[in-house]
Amino acid sequence: MPDRSGLLIGEMPVMWLRDNCPCGLCRDPRSGQKLFQINSLPAGLRVESVVEGIGGGQRSVEVVWGPDGHRSAYAVEWLEANRPGGGDGGDRRSEHGKELWRAADLAGRLPEARWEAYAGDPGVRARMLEAVLRVGFMLLRGVPERAGQVLAVAETFGHVRETNYGKLFDVRVEPDPNNLAFTSARITPHTDNPYRDPVPTLQLLHCLVNDAEGGESGLVDGFAAAAELRKEDPAAFDVLTRTPVPFVFRDAGTELRADRPLIDTDPLGRVREVRFNNRSIGTLRLPAAELEAFYAAYRAFAELLLRPELQLDLRLAPGDCLLFDNTRLLHARTAFAQDGARHLQGCYADLDGLASSLAVLRRADSLEPLAELFAGAGAAEYLGESVTMAEHMLQAGARAEAAGAPPHLVAAALLHDVGHFEGADGGVSGQDLMAGTDNRHSHTGADLLGRWFGPRVTEPVRLHVAAKRYLCAVEPGYHDRLSEASRYTLRVQGGAMTGAQAAEFAALPGAADAVAVRRWDEEAKEPAAVTPPFEHFLPLLAALLRG
Amino acid sequence: MPDRSGLLIGEMPVMWLRDNCPCGLCRDPRSGQKLFQINSLPAGLRVESVVEGIGGGQRSVEVVWGPDGHRSAYAVEWLEANRPGGGDGGDRRSEHGKELWRAADLAGRLPEARWEAYAGDPGVRARMLEAVLRVGFMLLRGVPERAGQVLAVAETFGHVRETNYGKLFDVRVEPDPNNLAFTSARITPHTDNPYRDPVPTLQLLHCLVNDAEGGESGLVDGFAAAAELRKEDPAAFDVLTRTPVPFVFRDAGTELRADRPLIDTDPLGRVREVRFNNRSIGTLRLPAAELEAFYAAYRAFAELLLRPELQLDLRLAPGDCLLFDNTRLLHARTAFAQDGARHLQGCYADLDGLASSLAVLRRADSLEPLAELFAGAGAAEYLGESVTMAEHMLQAGARAEAAGAPPHLVAAALLHDVGHFEGADGGVSGQDLMAGTDNRHSHTGADLLGRWFGPRVTEPVRLHVAAKRYLCAVEPGYHDRLSEASRYTLRVQGGAMTGAQAAEFAALPGAADAVAVRRWDEEAKEPAAVTPPFEHFLPLLAALLRG
Repeated sequence: MPDRSGLLIGEMPVMWLRDNCPCGLCRDPRSGQKLFQINSLPAGLRVESVVEGIGGGQRSVEVVWGPDGHRSAYAVEWLEANRPGGGDGGDRRSEHGKELWRAADLAGRLPEARWEAYAGDPGVRARMLEAVLRVGFMLLRGVPERAGQVLAVAETFGHVRETNYGKLFDVRVEPDPNNLAFTSARITPHTDNPYRDPVPTLQLLHCLVNDAEGGESGLVDGFAAAAELRKEDPAAFDVLTRTPVPFVFRDAGTELRADRPLIDTDPLGRVREVRFNNRSIGTLRLPAAELEAFYAAYRAFAELLLRPELQLDLRLAPGDCLLFDNTRLLHARTAFAQDGARHLQGCYADLDGLASSLAVLRRADSLEPLAELFAGAGAAEYLGESVTMAEHMLQAGARAEAAGAPPHLVAAALLHDVGHFEGADGGVSGQDLMAGTDNRHSHTGADLLGRWFGPRVTEPVRLHVAAKRYLCAVEPGYHDRLSEASRYTLRVQGGAMTGAQAAEFAALPGAADAVAVRRWDEEAKEPAAVTPPFEHFLPLLAALLRG
Repeated sequence: MPDRSGLLIGEMPVMWLRDNCPCGLCRDPRSGQKLFQINSLPAGLRVESVVEGIGGGQRSVEVVWGPDGHRSAYAVEWLEANRPGGGDGGDRRSEHGKELWRAADLAGRLPEARWEAYAGDPGVRARMLEAVLRVGFMLLRGVPERAGQVLAVAETFGHVRETNYGKLFDVRVEPDPNNLAFTSARITPHTDNPYRDPVPTLQLLHCLVNDAEGGESGLVDGFAAAAELRKEDPAAFDVLTRTPVPFVFRDAGTELRADRPLIDTDPLGRVREVRFNNRSIGTLRLPAAELEAFYAAYRAFAELLLRPELQLDLRLAPGDCLLFDNTRLLHARTAFAQDGARHLQGCYADLDGLASSLAVLRRADSLEPLAELFAGAGAAEYLGESVTMAEHMLQAGARAEAAGAPPHLVAAALLHDVGHFEGADGGVSGQDLMAGTDNRHSHTGADLLGRWFGPRVTEPVRLHVAAKRYLCAVEPGYHDRLSEASRYTLRVQGGAMTGAQAAEFAALPGAADAVAVRRWDEEAKEPAAVTPPFEHFLPLLAALLRG
């Protein structure tokens, strides 16, 4: 389909396309980081030619660039997924893609989980972290009522952000409070620490004691409220997005000030942060007319935020830990009897670490089919060897790891024989191979793995059978060290290479890697070997997943 | 001057003025936080009357509000300083108020200091922290070449921000780097962690070893570069401020993404953050025409950032610690020989904590004249007692502190006799008092202290002589326990109060506090007492300074 791809390429801005070149000269193969400056691309950059092909188990397009002759190979799948104009360009932190809510919308479907499930089950953890990004909070129940436990909750997904209140702070009545939070007073809906810049983007509150009369908690979706204000009173919304407001805090050791609008929008005008805290707004210094407009808008927003239908009421019980997006949700509490016992512990953290943890959990999710292969079909015997398929591959992976191999080779060693499993779904199986038919398992395996991994993983797998035929040709004694089963399959696979074949093989880019995998493959047939489980390799595999 | 003040008040937006009411019903006296919601102010808010007066050592204006009858007393000084339209309304993090620079501008005046001076001298520390806010960096020399010392540097002004690179990270050649920083490659000017949101706003780099050929450091003022782009190519500047750019990072345990413009402006259009990192810009998904415009602008900015005249070159030597604003300055390094030893340790922190530390240091600065009183004139004898003036006041402050008194009373006890010092500048002195003339030292002291403190500190000082006359009237045996000198001065001060005077005194708002101060005053004449130095009270006093 050269025409179609040519047309596609012809429509793409050249600088954008070149900036996304995936080759090893343009991107560091280890870190994936770009190795060139945008201004070091040649003047007059142009596409000289476009050739479509198939390689590494996927359709790709090779572009030859003028005037510098650079070559870039793009996967067609990538080009289709990233076609200019095809995306939303939206900021994931903004209202775009969030689920805005009023209290009634969450009736019967609070994002909540038991602590043991959250801590022990990555699926539950992913569901809860996703809820924080989507609706702005999660509620964990049954979190051990230990002092300091809230820090452990934060560490399940990110890093604690220390502030002037410490790494950990106690929310209870204090004798000489530096903040009304540490009294028994009612606190209307607000965001925390608006006087910090950057503001802590997540807050955690862990309830240890709540015997007080009163002291109920409430949450309001500030993005939903801001969207409502934009609908009802666009002028007020506009004023609040463009008026920097001084938020101030001072006590004995602290003097903070940040000048930020109550509603912050991204460059596309979407709400991305809300700051609202009547207690800490300092003195605005603007011309009188602007002050009038600001105060009218501020008051309109304050009234809107207090509408009962917006506020989700909760009563935190001992063991409950509430986590919420402090750039979006406002939190509140009712007054309580001064002598009533109410003790929460809190800390701050950040959304970026939480989103990262969720993305990494999802990588592991996407590897589930591979995990199932190891647990299911992999438990079958391995072509006449005295280990199972899974044991054989785990041994190969463990040997590569012990040898200090780079991650992509550990993965290739671990997964080199997955092509044998394909027979289960029809086609030629391992049993067929032993019955004298080449199942081309190295190719089916590499193609299967192409769903998750790039050529650095798939090509050594593709070539690992050829590597056996190569080694038999060039390494004296290699053939004799093969297991009996392996010597048998060699014949089905074409026997030792000729000299010309061996020279051609050695010139392939993945040849050396394939030979390395082959050696671990040969060694991985020890009946007594103890290997780590497949899960041990999940983080390594997850890190190698296509972006 | 009721006319002048009336006019002033009449021009002020009522909601703004009322929102700034300093009374104890509107603001929590302990934390200074506001106690009311903006929307709980009555509809039809209006100024009913304005009366000017003098109280607490300063001119003030009392406003009576309709329709609710609330009363607010504003210091004229405050009204003048905060008059609507009089301020700049600028965001202190933006280019507004910064000193933008090119390399030559800093020739011979690098913001640098020796570690011992920085650590030991608050004045040096304030000067260096101020430089970070103004020019974007500071350079400390002679920082102990200990692993982990960079964390101690960060803790001199704020909190370390932990990231996926840890609390502390090593910048040296790594065998399997997840970032080009950990290779020997040249790194062009960039900001760090643009894929984090919030981005770490400060970076520290502490040099432990630098024997490598190459490996020079460079700094570029990104705000100056952005301002230059705005001048030379306003359209490109505009494109870069309104195009969210995906910044991405992934490794085995991390997957970060932030969508933010290269140049972020505040609502007034001023540059407030620059993100620039060619290595981690992901795939933009915009219509082709927008991609063309973005890449042209991105390239123009990249070229500008590489102009040699913008880059300040430095070579970090062992013991040097560079700290810079990661939202403003770009940093770079030249390539170095792979086998050359170069080892930096780094960490991240945040600008808000640094600015807070600077503000607190400046409070202590402003108390310098009081510190001098204690060190100078205070060493003089105290009116016939066997302690010096300074010893007497330090004892009073220490006794208040030991009694668990709130900070404003500790301050009042510590400073109750500063009025005696005023005589040194002319007027009636302590010696005059002993010679039979009432120097009204309680009033002169309170008026003097009004420069720094509010009525909660000044009024007990003003009333502490009256409190003696009151106690002599109402407390049997009190007079007899007075020292001989105090009994003598009592007569000059008017003797014991009459019953009517005592009742009037007891009704004053500060009477109870003044009586408490009086009792510590009486106790504070022990020749053998050991007291902390004046500096011990500085943080407490600093926290009480007028905002």
